[in-house]
Amino acid sequence: PKRSLQFVKKAARSLTTFRDHFPKNDDFSNRHIGPTEEEAYQMIKYLGLKDIDELTNRTIPDNIKLTRPLNLEEQLDEPELISRLMKIAENNKVWRSYMGMGYYNTHVPNTILRNMFENPGWTTQYTPYQPEISQGRLEGLINYQTLVCDMTKMEIGNASLLDESTAAAEAVALCHRQTKRNKFIIDSKCHPQTIAVCLTRSLPLGIDIDIVDRDKMIFDKKVAGFLLQYPDTEGTVHDMQNLVEEAHKHQCLAVCATDLLALTALKPPGEYDFDIALGSTQRFGVPLGYGGPHAAFFAVKDKFKRLMPGRMVGVSRDSNGKDCYRLALQTREQHIRRNKATSNICTAQALLANMSAMYAVYHGPKGLKHIGTRVHKATCVLAAGLRKTGHVIENEHFFDTLHIRPVYTPSEIMIKANQKKINLRYFENGNIGVSLDETIEDEDVRDLLWIFGCEIPLEDLIKEEENLTEKLKHSRTSSFLEHEVFNKYQSETEIVRYMKILENKDLSLVHSMIPLGSCTMKLNSTTEMMPSSWPALSSIHPFAPIEQAQGYLQLFLDFEKDLCEITGYDKISFQPNSGAQGEYAGLRTIKAYLDDNDQKHRVVCLIPESAHGTNPASAKMAGMDVIDIKVNKQGGVDMLDLKNKAEEWSDKLAALMITYPSTNGVFDKEIREICDLIHHLGGQVYLDGANMNAQVGLCRPGDYGSDVSHLNLHKTFCIPHGGGGPGMGPIGVKAHLAPYLPTHPIVRPAGARHQSFGTVSAAPYGSSAILPISYAYIKLMGPKGLKRATQMAIINANYMAKRLSKHYKILFTNNEGFCAHEFIIDCRNFKTSTKIVATDIAKRLQDYGFHAPTMSWPVSDCLMIEPTESESKSELDRYCDALISIRKEIDMIAEGKLDLHDNPLKRSPHTIQDVTASEWNRAYSREMAAFPAEFVNPTSKFWPPVGRIDDIYGDSHFQCRCPPVTTYKSAYLD
Amino acid sequence: PKRSLQFVKKAARSLTTFRDHFPKNDDFSNRHIGPTEEEAYQMIKYLGLKDIDELTNRTIPDNIKLTRPLNLEEQLDEPELISRLMKIAENNKVWRSYMGMGYYNTHVPNTILRNMFENPGWTTQYTPYQPEISQGRLEGLINYQTLVCDMTKMEIGNASLLDESTAAAEAVALCHRQTKRNKFIIDSKCHPQTIAVCLTRSLPLGIDIDIVDRDKMIFDKKVAGFLLQYPDTEGTVHDMQNLVEEAHKHQCLAVCATDLLALTALKPPGEYDFDIALGSTQRFGVPLGYGGPHAAFFAVKDKFKRLMPGRMVGVSRDSNGKDCYRLALQTREQHIRRNKATSNICTAQALLANMSAMYAVYHGPKGLKHIGTRVHKATCVLAAGLRKTGHVIENEHFFDTLHIRPVYTPSEIMIKANQKKINLRYFENGNIGVSLDETIEDEDVRDLLWIFGCEIPLEDLIKEEENLTEKLKHSRTSSFLEHEVFNKYQSETEIVRYMKILENKDLSLVHSMIPLGSCTMKLNSTTEMMPSSWPALSSIHPFAPIEQAQGYLQLFLDFEKDLCEITGYDKISFQPNSGAQGEYAGLRTIKAYLDDNDQKHRVVCLIPESAHGTNPASAKMAGMDVIDIKVNKQGGVDMLDLKNKAEEWSDKLAALMITYPSTNGVFDKEIREICDLIHHLGGQVYLDGANMNAQVGLCRPGDYGSDVSHLNLHKTFCIPHGGGGPGMGPIGVKAHLAPYLPTHPIVRPAGARHQSFGTVSAAPYGSSAILPISYAYIKLMGPKGLKRATQMAIINANYMAKRLSKHYKILFTNNEGFCAHEFIIDCRNFKTSTKIVATDIAKRLQDYGFHAPTMSWPVSDCLMIEPTESESKSELDRYCDALISIRKEIDMIAEGKLDLHDNPLKRSPHTIQDVTASEWNRAYSREMAAFPAEFVNPTSKFWPPVGRIDDIYGDSHFQCRCPPVTTYKSAYLD
Repeated sequence: PKRSLQFVKKAARSLTTFRDHFPKNDDFSNRHIGPTEEEAYQMIKYLGLKDIDELTNRTIPDNIKLTRPLNLEEQLDEPELISRLMKIAENNKVWRSYMGMGYYNTHVPNTILRNMFENPGWTTQYTPYQPEISQGRLEGLINYQTLVCDMTKMEIGNASLLDESTAAAEAVALCHRQTKRNKFIIDSKCHPQTIAVCLTRSLPLGIDIDIVDRDKMIFDKKVAGFLLQYPDTEGTVHDMQNLVEEAHKHQCLAVCATDLLALTALKPPGEYDFDIALGSTQRFGVPLGYGGPHAAFFAVKDKFKRLMPGRMVGVSRDSNGKDCYRLALQTREQHIRRNKATSNICTAQALLANMSAMYAVYHGPKGLKHIGTRVHKATCVLAAGLRKTGHVIENEHFFDTLHIRPVYTPSEIMIKANQKKINLRYFENGNIGVSLDETIEDEDVRDLLWIFGCEIPLEDLIKEEENLTEKLKHSRTSSFLEHEVFNKYQSETEIVRYMKILENKDLSLVHSMIPLGSCTMKLNSTTEMMPSSWPALSSIHPFAPIEQAQGYLQLFLDFEKDLCEITGYDKISFQPNSGAQGEYAGLRTIKAYLDDNDQKHRVVCLIPESAHGTNPASAKMAGMDVIDIKVNKQGGVDMLDLKNKAEEWSDKLAALMITYPSTNGVFDKEIREICDLIHHLGGQVYLDGANMNAQVGLCRPGDYGSDVSHLNLHKTFCIPHGGGGPGMGPIGVKAHLAPYLPTHPIVRPAGARHQSFGTVSAAPYGSSAILPISYAYIKLMGPKGLKRATQMAIINANYMAKRLSKHYKILFTNNEGFCAHEFIIDCRNFKTSTKIVATDIAKRLQDYGFHAPTMSWPVSDCLMIEPTESESKSELDRYCDALISIRKEIDMIAEGKLDLHDNPLKRSPHTIQDVTASEWNRAYSREMAAFPAEFVNPTSKFWPPVGRIDDIYGDSHFQCRCPPVTTYKSAYLD
Repeated sequence: PKRSLQFVKKAARSLTTFRDHFPKNDDFSNRHIGPTEEEAYQMIKYLGLKDIDELTNRTIPDNIKLTRPLNLEEQLDEPELISRLMKIAENNKVWRSYMGMGYYNTHVPNTILRNMFENPGWTTQYTPYQPEISQGRLEGLINYQTLVCDMTKMEIGNASLLDESTAAAEAVALCHRQTKRNKFIIDSKCHPQTIAVCLTRSLPLGIDIDIVDRDKMIFDKKVAGFLLQYPDTEGTVHDMQNLVEEAHKHQCLAVCATDLLALTALKPPGEYDFDIALGSTQRFGVPLGYGGPHAAFFAVKDKFKRLMPGRMVGVSRDSNGKDCYRLALQTREQHIRRNKATSNICTAQALLANMSAMYAVYHGPKGLKHIGTRVHKATCVLAAGLRKTGHVIENEHFFDTLHIRPVYTPSEIMIKANQKKINLRYFENGNIGVSLDETIEDEDVRDLLWIFGCEIPLEDLIKEEENLTEKLKHSRTSSFLEHEVFNKYQSETEIVRYMKILENKDLSLVHSMIPLGSCTMKLNSTTEMMPSSWPALSSIHPFAPIEQAQGYLQLFLDFEKDLCEITGYDKISFQPNSGAQGEYAGLRTIKAYLDDNDQKHRVVCLIPESAHGTNPASAKMAGMDVIDIKVNKQGGVDMLDLKNKAEEWSDKLAALMITYPSTNGVFDKEIREICDLIHHLGGQVYLDGANMNAQVGLCRPGDYGSDVSHLNLHKTFCIPHGGGGPGMGPIGVKAHLAPYLPTHPIVRPAGARHQSFGTVSAAPYGSSAILPISYAYIKLMGPKGLKRATQMAIINANYMAKRLSKHYKILFTNNEGFCAHEFIIDCRNFKTSTKIVATDIAKRLQDYGFHAPTMSWPVSDCLMIEPTESESKSELDRYCDALISIRKEIDMIAEGKLDLHDNPLKRSPHTIQDVTASEWNRAYSREMAAFPAEFVNPTSKFWPPVGRIDDIYGDSHFQCRCPPVTTYKSAYLD
């Protein structure tokens, strides 16, 4: 009935166009939203409601309701959207960019592009917090860590950070934390965006940054450490031995920003005794994407592992003693340590790290060495040609980048380069930079020689180069990537099978719902995803002249307009490339505004106890003092405590950080009042956008008093989670904050002002290449679809909550008894009698083929469920049934029908190996173990590949590189 | 060492370009070929050989060896290939085509495009001859059959035929076989290509075709049946009741070529009592692709099911009594009945049928009805506008196609149409045809009105149309697609999961090797596959003016040149869209040549007994008499028998059909002698190209005496098997045969001559859209890569044969002891003592995670193994180990260590359900059942979703539509 109803509705309007009269069958919003109209109606009835709007009316406070439709373009259908985005993409111009600065052309192996990047089995998994059903991507990520450690010769690597510049900023902070010193030295020849981000990030931490030439660095007891770029931004390869030794003499830490391809040829930082190495793995098979997403790496000496920012994968063992992978040392992280965390970083770049690791698996050590050698030789040939033409190569020792003092004027060269559609790096002093990469061909070198006026035929230069015995200085002598995983999958057939084996170990949205409270795991539709693969969007250097990125700019502007309308803000910055980055940028924007208005003394940030750990961590990093606000029994802010604390700190009050609807899944009715209070006391309101999925089309933060929010595009706006990233966290602000939004030292983002507080990401627009996903979502849904999606998200949650309320205590609802788009079930009331805790339920859900909800957050030993609008009623029913069935199992324990220890919850999850072994000495049946419900179909069940993982063992036997494997040897081979 | 060796080799040559001097890392041939150089060396040593060439020398007869390198373009790397094909594709022009004639624009749902068409899990399965591990695509195909039966209201449908025109030809033949009558009437308003194919195919069968207007049809006892197009090619919808009744009065059969979208609105053929309905499902979500591949359907009354051509999926039960799917009634087929088969058809269009079925699942009955209504209404609006402008709509009753007698001259209209880049159908009499489709938008209708000079605003026409109560004549009253499968997966989340569940039930090349003898299941690389998705290749109507298909023509010509060089032929026809179609076209070419040279009496075709069943079936269809030739103990042709038969039939000898290397996997050393003999006696040699993978670069059929071959592009040239199609079978011929190659009534293929024997496919170039795959393969491999691939295919086969020879008898080798690219293991010698037959081994292999080799063909109760060059040594070793391990299990039966009936072979394959059940009362362990070898990893094992399937039960309880399902009902729902 869903389609025919619509038909009638539209037909009743005054008709003009064919489209109105004969609407197309395909309404994307019906594809995106799980329940049909009929199912929605059933659920509404079940909730005792009249219609969909009644629930909205009874959950959203009256004084914040949006009473008009969103003023957005009517929805496009899928072919229209694709053709719209094609037209936009055509306005980009893909020139050859040899600008370097941390971004290089690369050949993404097509088999990796299609089988990973374009495969929902690889893009729609959640962050691997349930490691038993995340073994595939965890193996990929441990390959990544092994790659990083091998190439850098460092002891411990993570997987992964957001970009090279934020990695550098993390390193600065680590040195500061470790040494308790407040000075830090940065080589002036680091990439400019890295310097900018380090400066921005160091300021509130009280770290004093010195930008100096490398030969002028002076170390003493005040210096926490130094950062070098290797090879440096101009391409020069220096010997760093003395510098590191000198620093270490004064207990200063040595940090090296480097490039993994260069390290195939150059002595690695670990062999110079660096304490930290970092960089981007973009050129390992991840498209330029006008700035991202790419994965950055961060590697340290073993002794610093507990100070490491970001996620680390470690080896542990499961309940059968088998090797397995999981996130290690999580106690370092923001969700545990809050404002005492090592960093606010949460999202990683899992998908991109996995692609880079697979690129290394694909090429293997010999292939990478070959690519490195070839790039270097091409650079040598180019250098020879330029020298013979009279140009001066300023950097005698280089890997792939030449720093050229040309005999002609830069503009003469630029005219010729533009004629060939080639981008070079033009230094302010008239020098020119050229960085080569693996895509370089004869024709490219010829064009470069022509641009520089070299008339010597390439062939002659090559012959000559052959005879030169010119050796690379500081060349690498140590081997790398000797582990078997990098040496056995080099035929396409083999690597396809390897990618498939890993994919099939991961539960993702292609299998079943993943109702992660606060994480909004909704449909990531193919149509939304397709444009990110288009060369016109993926092959543009982030520092290319903006004339070449007009398509992107058009998209950013249109997208900004839509986001402003949805949120009620006036201006958007796309620079923050994760939610936590958004928080940080938003708080810095507030701070810059306050400072600029003579309110420098305002440094206190009020944060409810229920807030996500990134909130206090970000506030801390932004230089604020965090004051906790209590939460009341309904899950809302304790108004009395808030008023008291706000009054108490009113002189120093900078901001309130609040999540809405609350992290407890409730629309506090006092939100407007709260905002007014904060404003009244001179503070600003930061509204965490994590739960925006409950607001779109129903209420707007900008309307009811918030000054700034970040928008997790990977939650509400359909960027897939990628198994733990990429994320994207643009911020929206009210007009008074707009001048303070992030800027960039190389490409100033549209609208950035000189009052900007600084730079938060390496690229001016963050991870541009995935913005079309969210753009597409908004356009495909249209104003009505977006509102209906929000309403359905709330209905789905309330439907589940009501079904489950007969079996579990539901923690928080509003005074009408409704939750917002998520709800919490309490798992504490049977803990004493049955020993069953939330973890047991989470693991047991795996036996039912499901991913657990959010566990022990925001309330410990509880589960928070967010179904989203994309799940159908039958999927919601199955999930409820699984939880009810588990509840009955718990009752059986309480009643003594199941053993207190040897029961299917405590011993979950059950692997195929467990239930197929001849020996079965458990106190319950194999069937109960593996097929506990009618809907768990043996032919389609997702099986956890490992049993319950021992976290403590893993952390106490820390191992974060690929464990040794034994190659299969034929038993019968002669 | 593989890459570095190459580096050295190239460096030793005289160097000029950068590419020579610094070769890129990526040599595609190393990605395509499984074993590394080191592994190849190990295998060569194991075979007791010096080098790779020694094996070639000792397997290929001296007198046919190609002694020079192939004269082909040097290999391109992957990015070069993609950019080459992009340039080619840019030479195509994608206009809007409203020409109809069986081909329509359609929106391929992007989620189906990406998750099926672009997903190797859906494209690289083999034909479902091992149904236990093919349940996913079999379920898809039974959905297809249900779709067809529901829409047509026929009782039995197949899945699927190659195109609508060949389906019509099959219907003509069926009527002829059934009635034993030699006259057949075809409505003159059928699509011209359908008439052409029917005429071509009927001639050698002695069927006399009358092309008449529908109101002039006269039935009598000589008439086998009649064929109508509904709606007809001009778009008219007639009442067919009287005609069908009249035909049935004379026991003539009634055949209806129809269109499933029209049947959403029109009374279906089954309700007119038609005996056969057929058509194309292209417009159900399969791109135009300049002619294909698309799936055609064929549906009959129940009583004709044993005469049905092509594959049918039926429901049966497995060893546990569970419903399951498998190919039904296979005894009809050519591989069983040979020249008595109902048809020579072998390849189906499984992938495309699955896409169409999924399109129906995606839209459901309401969606399809909606699309049909909308297309019809748009046509009504257009008709109204045209009538008001003075044009005459010749067909009063229409669905989506107007037949227009214009007031202006056709050229006036064409000029305006070309201005709008719109293709219309221009009839010879000056009339014009316009067919609308689901992609139609306001703008399109406006443009069409403008072209016809209609100045009335679209809006007014729409308003008017609204008030018209004009009813569609002969409209449909019956419902369709009420089965749950078409009514539950309409959100994208749900359909993605459904596609994934089906995908995961099928073993494909993403899991493990599929060493199907004679079927060459090699790598289908992503780079080869990508271009087929590009709109510039996929969105062109096959009858578009050739100016718009210049890219395709360029590709065809270049590809033809390459294939001629590879085969030694002079000319290629791309029209045959399967191997069997190629055989047929080749034999008809021979016959046309003989006829044209006063050799009409030559009708005998000699075919070795070991030939694939399609050979005699095709010969029979081409009007030849088949004489069997014996096979000798070495698996080669019995020369004595050949000479005797050839002499005996020399007067009537038309052709010898021979497979080379033989279907027994041996390079007969007498092949040249054989060819000479046939030529000497006035016959022509047809060399079956199925085993071309053993010849490329080593010998060329055109050199040693063959006159014509078909090339299975889906074997040697990397088009994926798609789970049972598409295939592609172009033919190569020597110059003297070239004038007789296929032509086409609408678009004459390049090089077609008036002497052509006729038309074999609906589209002039067959399945154009997949030709880029094979083109890409040749370009990516280059002459050296292609040769090395062939050599490695032979080495891999000999390596496996030698390893297995210690455990199984190897049936045929040449006198040096070597096989070609495949070999046969004998499974008969333990049959008596252990009751184990080849089937048991085949099913047992599933427990090891493997697909069986070719079973009982060409030698019954044997297995034929063809590993191809794409499998690595370790995969070959695992497969050998599985077979050796099975051999040891057989020994255990012989020794009484395993029971004669209750053993893991007889009871294989084992499902998860089997081995996880509490009850286990088998005489062997669960571990032996499910994990019989060390390499069978519980975390990555592919599990057969059903137990052994009972074929006999299925055929005796024939059921070819979706079985009823019970919807999941929550056990706890209130």
